[in-house]
Amino acid sequence: MNIKFVVVSKTDSDYIQTGINDYMSRLRHYIPFELICLPAAKDLRNATPDIVKAREATMILKQMERADRVVLLDEKGEEYTSTGFARQLQKTMNSGIRTLMFVAGGAYGFDAAVYEKAHATLSLSQMTFNHQMVRLFFAEQLYRAMTILRGEKYHNA
Amino acid sequence: MNIKFVVVSKTDSDYIQTGINDYMSRLRHYIPFELICLPAAKDLRNATPDIVKAREATMILKQMERADRVVLLDEKGEEYTSTGFARQLQKTMNSGIRTLMFVAGGAYGFDAAVYEKAHATLSLSQMTFNHQMVRLFFAEQLYRAMTILRGEKYHNA
Repeated sequence: MNIKFVVVSKTDSDYIQTGINDYMSRLRHYIPFELICLPAAKDLRNATPDIVKAREATMILKQMERADRVVLLDEKGEEYTSTGFARQLQKTMNSGIRTLMFVAGGAYGFDAAVYEKAHATLSLSQMTFNHQMVRLFFAEQLYRAMTILRGEKYHNA
Repeated sequence: MNIKFVVVSKTDSDYIQTGINDYMSRLRHYIPFELICLPAAKDLRNATPDIVKAREATMILKQMERADRVVLLDEKGEEYTSTGFARQLQKTMNSGIRTLMFVAGGAYGFDAAVYEKAHATLSLSQMTFNHQMVRLFFAEQLYRAMTILRGEKYHNA
Protein backbone atom coordinates (compact mmCIF):
# COMPACT_ATOMS: atom_id res chain seq x y z
CA MET A 1 0.00 0.00 0.00
CA ASN A 2 1.07 3.57 -0.50
CA ILE A 3 -0.15 6.68 1.28
CA LYS A 4 -0.98 9.98 -0.37
CA PHE A 5 -1.53 13.08 1.73
CA VAL A 6 -3.35 15.80 -0.19
CA VAL A 7 -3.30 19.33 1.23
CA VAL A 8 -4.62 22.61 -0.10
CA SER A 9 -2.15 25.50 -0.49
CA LYS A 10 1.56 25.60 0.12
CA THR A 11 2.90 25.33 3.66
CA ASP A 12 4.05 28.88 4.22
CA SER A 13 5.73 28.59 7.62
CA ASP A 14 9.28 27.40 7.12
CA TYR A 15 9.40 25.78 10.52
CA ILE A 16 6.29 23.71 9.83
CA GLN A 17 7.74 22.61 6.50
CA THR A 18 10.95 21.57 8.25
CA GLY A 19 8.97 19.41 10.65
CA ILE A 20 6.89 17.87 7.87
CA ASN A 21 10.03 17.06 5.87
CA ASP A 22 11.54 15.41 8.92
CA TYR A 23 8.56 13.13 9.49
CA MET A 24 8.11 12.41 5.78
CA SER A 25 11.65 11.12 5.48
CA ARG A 26 11.21 8.94 8.57
CA LEU A 27 7.87 7.68 7.30
CA ARG A 28 9.32 6.63 3.96
CA HIS A 29 11.46 4.05 5.71
CA TYR A 30 8.21 2.20 6.34
CA ILE A 31 5.85 2.95 3.48
CA PRO A 32 5.74 4.82 0.16
CA PHE A 33 4.44 8.26 1.02
CA GLU A 34 3.63 11.23 -1.19
CA LEU A 35 2.61 14.75 -0.14
CA ILE A 36 0.49 16.46 -2.77
CA CYS A 37 0.14 20.21 -2.37
CA LEU A 38 -2.76 21.63 -4.37
CA PRO A 39 -2.41 25.30 -5.31
CA ALA A 40 -4.50 27.80 -3.34
CA ALA A 41 -7.11 29.61 -5.39
CA LYS A 42 -5.32 32.97 -5.21
CA ASP A 43 -7.60 34.71 -7.68
CA LEU A 44 -10.48 33.87 -5.35
CA ARG A 45 -9.22 35.99 -2.48
CA ASN A 46 -12.53 37.86 -2.14
CA ALA A 47 -14.76 34.92 -2.98
CA THR A 48 -17.25 33.44 -0.52
CA PRO A 49 -16.23 30.30 1.41
CA ASP A 50 -18.61 28.25 -0.73
CA ILE A 51 -16.94 29.32 -3.94
CA VAL A 52 -13.47 28.62 -2.54
CA LYS A 53 -14.55 25.19 -1.29
CA ALA A 54 -16.10 24.34 -4.65
CA ARG A 55 -12.90 25.25 -6.47
CA GLU A 56 -10.81 23.23 -4.03
CA ALA A 57 -13.22 20.32 -4.40
CA THR A 58 -12.60 20.19 -8.15
CA MET A 59 -8.87 19.84 -7.54
CA ILE A 60 -9.24 17.34 -4.71
CA LEU A 61 -11.61 15.10 -6.67
CA LYS A 62 -9.16 15.01 -9.58
CA GLN A 63 -6.59 13.39 -7.27
CA MET A 64 -8.87 10.50 -6.39
CA GLU A 65 -8.73 7.26 -8.30
CA ARG A 66 -11.68 4.92 -8.21
CA ALA A 67 -9.98 2.27 -6.08
CA ASP A 68 -8.43 4.65 -3.55
CA ARG A 69 -9.59 4.71 0.01
CA VAL A 70 -10.15 8.37 0.96
CA VAL A 71 -10.08 9.68 4.52
CA LEU A 72 -10.77 13.35 5.27
CA LEU A 73 -9.07 15.10 8.18
CA ASP A 74 -12.03 16.80 9.74
CA GLU A 75 -12.47 18.30 13.21
CA LYS A 76 -15.90 16.72 13.42
CA GLY A 77 -14.63 13.37 12.22
CA GLU A 78 -13.95 10.25 14.21
CA GLU A 79 -11.39 10.39 17.00
CA TYR A 80 -8.87 7.66 17.63
CA THR A 81 -6.07 7.02 20.05
CA SER A 82 -2.70 6.58 18.35
CA THR A 83 -2.96 2.83 18.86
CA GLY A 84 -6.50 2.78 17.48
CA PHE A 85 -5.37 4.75 14.45
CA ALA A 86 -2.48 2.32 13.88
CA ARG A 87 -4.96 -0.58 14.02
CA GLN A 88 -7.16 1.11 11.42
CA LEU A 89 -4.15 1.56 9.20
CA GLN A 90 -3.27 -2.11 9.53
CA LYS A 91 -6.84 -3.09 8.62
CA THR A 92 -6.68 -0.97 5.48
CA MET A 93 -3.36 -2.55 4.50
CA ASN A 94 -4.82 -6.02 5.05
CA SER A 95 -7.83 -5.24 2.88
CA GLY A 96 -5.65 -5.05 -0.23
CA ILE A 97 -6.23 -1.36 -0.92
CA ARG A 98 -3.37 0.00 -3.03
CA THR A 99 -3.65 3.70 -2.23
CA LEU A 100 -4.81 5.24 1.00
CA MET A 101 -5.43 8.96 0.57
CA PHE A 102 -5.74 11.43 3.41
CA VAL A 103 -6.98 14.92 2.61
CA ALA A 104 -6.58 18.06 4.71
CA GLY A 105 -8.86 20.83 3.48
CA GLY A 106 -8.31 24.55 3.16
CA ALA A 107 -9.24 27.19 5.73
CA TYR A 108 -12.99 26.70 5.15
CA GLY A 109 -13.14 22.93 5.23
CA PHE A 110 -14.60 20.66 2.56
CA ASP A 111 -17.31 21.02 -0.04
CA ALA A 112 -20.19 18.54 0.14
CA ALA A 113 -18.91 16.91 -3.07
CA VAL A 114 -15.72 15.90 -1.27
CA TYR A 115 -17.57 14.42 1.70
CA GLU A 116 -19.65 12.42 -0.75
CA LYS A 117 -16.62 10.74 -2.29
CA ALA A 118 -14.82 10.07 0.99
CA HIS A 119 -14.94 6.77 2.86
CA ALA A 120 -14.18 8.05 6.34
CA THR A 121 -13.30 11.10 8.39
CA LEU A 122 -10.61 11.43 11.02
CA SER A 123 -10.38 14.04 13.74
CA LEU A 124 -6.98 14.69 15.31
CA SER A 125 -8.51 16.84 18.03
CA GLN A 126 -11.77 18.47 18.99
CA MET A 127 -9.82 21.69 18.93
CA THR A 128 -9.39 23.72 15.78
CA PHE A 129 -5.77 23.97 14.77
CA ASN A 130 -4.13 26.19 12.23
CA HIS A 131 -4.74 24.21 9.05
CA GLN A 132 -1.05 24.23 8.18
CA MET A 133 -0.06 22.90 11.57
CA VAL A 134 -2.49 20.02 11.12
CA ARG A 135 -0.13 18.72 8.44
CA LEU A 136 2.72 18.49 10.87
CA PHE A 137 0.57 16.81 13.53
CA PHE A 138 -0.71 14.31 11.06
CA ALA A 139 2.71 13.47 9.59
CA GLU A 140 3.86 12.76 13.13
CA GLN A 141 0.85 10.51 13.78
CA LEU A 142 1.46 8.51 10.61
CA TYR A 143 5.07 7.98 11.61
CA ARG A 144 3.99 7.05 15.13
CA ALA A 145 1.43 4.58 13.76
CA MET A 146 4.13 2.86 11.71
CA THR A 147 6.41 2.49 14.74
CA ILE A 148 3.46 1.08 16.72
CA LEU A 149 2.70 -1.48 14.00
CA ARG A 150 6.35 -2.55 13.86
CA GLY A 151 6.53 -2.72 17.63
CA GLU A 152 9.42 -0.29 17.53
CA LYS A 153 10.47 2.30 20.05
CA TYR A 154 9.39 5.76 18.93
CA HIS A 155 12.41 7.83 18.02
CA ASN A 156 12.24 11.41 19.06
CA ALA A 157 15.26 12.50 17.09
CA MET B 1 -4.16 37.18 35.25
CA ASN B 2 -0.90 35.76 33.96
CA ILE B 3 -0.23 32.39 32.41
CA LYS B 4 2.71 30.14 33.17
CA PHE B 5 3.47 27.15 31.02
CA VAL B 6 5.76 24.67 32.73
CA VAL B 7 7.47 22.03 30.60
CA VAL B 8 10.02 19.37 31.42
CA SER B 9 13.29 19.35 29.44
CA LYS B 10 14.51 21.75 26.81
CA THR B 11 12.80 21.84 23.42
CA ASP B 12 15.46 20.18 21.29
CA SER B 13 13.98 20.56 17.83
CA ASP B 14 14.85 24.00 16.48
CA TYR B 15 11.78 24.12 14.29
CA ILE B 16 9.47 23.47 17.22
CA GLN B 17 11.21 26.16 19.26
CA THR B 18 10.77 28.60 16.36
CA GLY B 19 7.05 27.90 16.30
CA ILE B 20 6.72 28.22 20.07
CA ASN B 21 8.58 31.54 20.01
CA ASP B 22 6.27 32.80 17.29
CA TYR B 23 3.11 31.97 19.25
CA MET B 24 4.57 33.22 22.54
CA SER B 25 5.28 36.63 21.10
CA ARG B 26 1.77 36.83 19.63
CA LEU B 27 0.24 35.66 22.89
CA ARG B 28 2.04 38.33 24.91
CA HIS B 29 0.06 41.00 23.09
CA TYR B 30 -2.92 39.71 25.03
CA ILE B 31 -1.71 38.38 28.34
CA PRO B 32 1.50 38.06 30.40
CA PHE B 33 2.91 34.68 29.50
CA GLU B 34 5.95 32.84 30.79
CA LEU B 35 7.42 29.55 29.56
CA ILE B 36 9.28 27.71 32.29
CA CYS B 37 11.57 24.92 31.09
CA LEU B 38 12.56 22.56 33.88
CA PRO B 39 15.82 20.69 33.34
CA ALA B 40 15.61 17.04 32.34
CA ALA B 41 17.04 14.62 34.85
CA LYS B 42 20.04 13.67 32.72
CA ASP B 43 21.75 11.67 35.41
CA LEU B 44 18.65 9.48 35.53
CA ARG B 45 18.98 8.18 32.00
CA ASN B 46 18.78 4.54 33.13
CA ALA B 47 16.27 5.08 35.90
CA THR B 48 12.79 3.57 35.90
CA PRO B 49 9.87 5.74 34.74
CA ASP B 50 8.68 6.02 38.33
CA ILE B 51 11.97 7.44 39.51
CA VAL B 52 12.07 9.94 36.63
CA LYS B 53 8.49 11.01 37.31
CA ALA B 54 9.21 11.45 41.02
CA ARG B 55 12.22 13.65 40.29
CA GLU B 56 10.21 15.71 37.80
CA ALA B 57 7.38 15.99 40.34
CA THR B 58 9.72 17.61 42.87
CA MET B 59 10.63 20.30 40.34
CA ILE B 60 7.07 20.82 39.14
CA LEU B 61 5.66 21.15 42.65
CA LYS B 62 8.28 23.79 43.47
CA GLN B 63 6.84 25.96 40.69
CA MET B 64 3.36 25.97 42.19
CA GLU B 65 2.24 28.71 44.51
CA ARG B 66 -0.65 28.13 46.85
CA ALA B 67 -3.08 30.41 45.00
CA ASP B 68 -2.24 29.23 41.48
CA ARG B 69 -4.72 27.33 39.43
CA VAL B 70 -2.92 24.31 37.97
CA VAL B 71 -4.02 22.49 34.82
CA LEU B 72 -2.15 19.41 33.57
CA LEU B 73 -1.90 18.65 29.87
CA ASP B 74 -2.80 15.00 29.89
CA GLU B 75 -3.93 12.71 27.07
CA LYS B 76 -6.56 11.25 29.35
CA GLY B 77 -7.73 14.68 30.51
CA GLU B 78 -10.82 16.59 29.52
CA GLU B 79 -11.26 17.48 25.88
CA TYR B 80 -12.56 20.84 24.74
CA THR B 81 -13.27 22.51 21.47
CA SER B 82 -11.23 25.68 20.93
CA THR B 83 -14.27 27.78 21.78
CA GLY B 84 -14.95 25.71 24.89
CA PHE B 85 -11.34 26.11 25.97
CA ALA B 86 -11.56 29.88 25.44
CA ARG B 87 -14.69 29.98 27.61
CA GLN B 88 -12.89 28.07 30.38
CA LEU B 89 -10.04 30.56 30.18
CA GLN B 90 -12.48 33.46 30.50
CA LYS B 91 -14.10 31.83 33.54
CA THR B 92 -10.72 31.48 35.22
CA MET B 93 -9.92 35.14 34.49
CA ASN B 94 -13.28 36.18 35.93
CA SER B 95 -12.70 34.18 39.10
CA GLY B 96 -9.89 36.50 40.19
CA ILE B 97 -7.13 33.90 39.95
CA ARG B 98 -3.77 35.64 39.50
CA THR B 99 -1.73 32.83 37.99
CA LEU B 100 -2.98 30.08 35.76
CA MET B 101 -0.35 27.38 35.35
CA PHE B 102 -0.37 24.74 32.65
CA VAL B 103 2.05 21.85 32.96
CA ALA B 104 3.22 19.50 30.21
CA GLY B 105 4.97 16.48 31.66
CA GLY B 106 7.98 14.56 30.48
CA ALA B 107 8.00 11.46 28.31
CA TYR B 108 6.46 9.28 31.05
CA GLY B 109 3.68 11.59 32.19
CA PHE B 110 3.04 12.79 35.73
CA ASP B 111 3.70 11.39 39.16
CA ALA B 112 0.66 10.90 41.41
CA ALA B 113 1.89 13.78 43.60
CA VAL B 114 1.43 16.18 40.68
CA TYR B 115 -2.09 14.94 39.92
CA GLU B 116 -2.91 15.48 43.56
CA LYS B 117 -1.98 19.15 43.48
CA ALA B 118 -3.63 19.90 40.13
CA HIS B 119 -7.09 21.41 39.74
CA ALA B 120 -7.88 20.12 36.29
CA THR B 121 -6.56 18.17 33.32
CA LEU B 122 -6.76 19.10 29.67
CA SER B 123 -6.41 16.78 26.70
CA LEU B 124 -5.48 18.29 23.35
CA SER B 125 -6.15 15.04 21.54
CA GLN B 126 -6.88 11.40 22.25
CA MET B 127 -3.78 10.72 20.21
CA THR B 128 -0.35 10.64 21.77
CA PHE B 129 1.87 13.34 20.36
CA ASN B 130 5.58 13.80 20.68
CA HIS B 131 5.80 15.55 24.04
CA GLN B 132 7.80 18.42 22.57
CA MET B 133 5.31 19.00 19.81
CA VAL B 134 2.55 19.27 22.39
CA ARG B 135 4.15 22.55 23.44
CA LEU B 136 3.73 24.00 20.01
CA PHE B 137 0.13 22.80 19.71
CA PHE B 138 -0.73 24.22 23.06
CA ALA B 139 0.92 27.61 22.46
CA GLU B 140 -1.17 27.84 19.29
CA GLN B 141 -4.35 26.97 21.21
CA LEU B 142 -3.68 29.63 23.85
CA TYR B 143 -3.17 32.23 21.14
CA ARG B 144 -6.30 31.03 19.36
CA ALA B 145 -8.30 31.23 22.61
CA MET B 146 -7.24 34.85 23.10
CA THR B 147 -8.33 35.81 19.58
CA ILE B 148 -11.66 34.05 20.20
CA LEU B 149 -12.21 35.95 23.46
CA ARG B 150 -11.39 39.25 21.77
CA GLY B 151 -13.62 38.42 18.83
CA GLU B 152 -10.68 38.93 16.52
CA LYS B 153 -9.88 37.27 13.26
CA TYR B 154 -7.21 34.61 13.72
CA HIS B 155 -4.00 35.68 12.06
CA ASN B 156 -2.15 32.94 10.32
CA ALA B 157 0.98 34.96 9.75
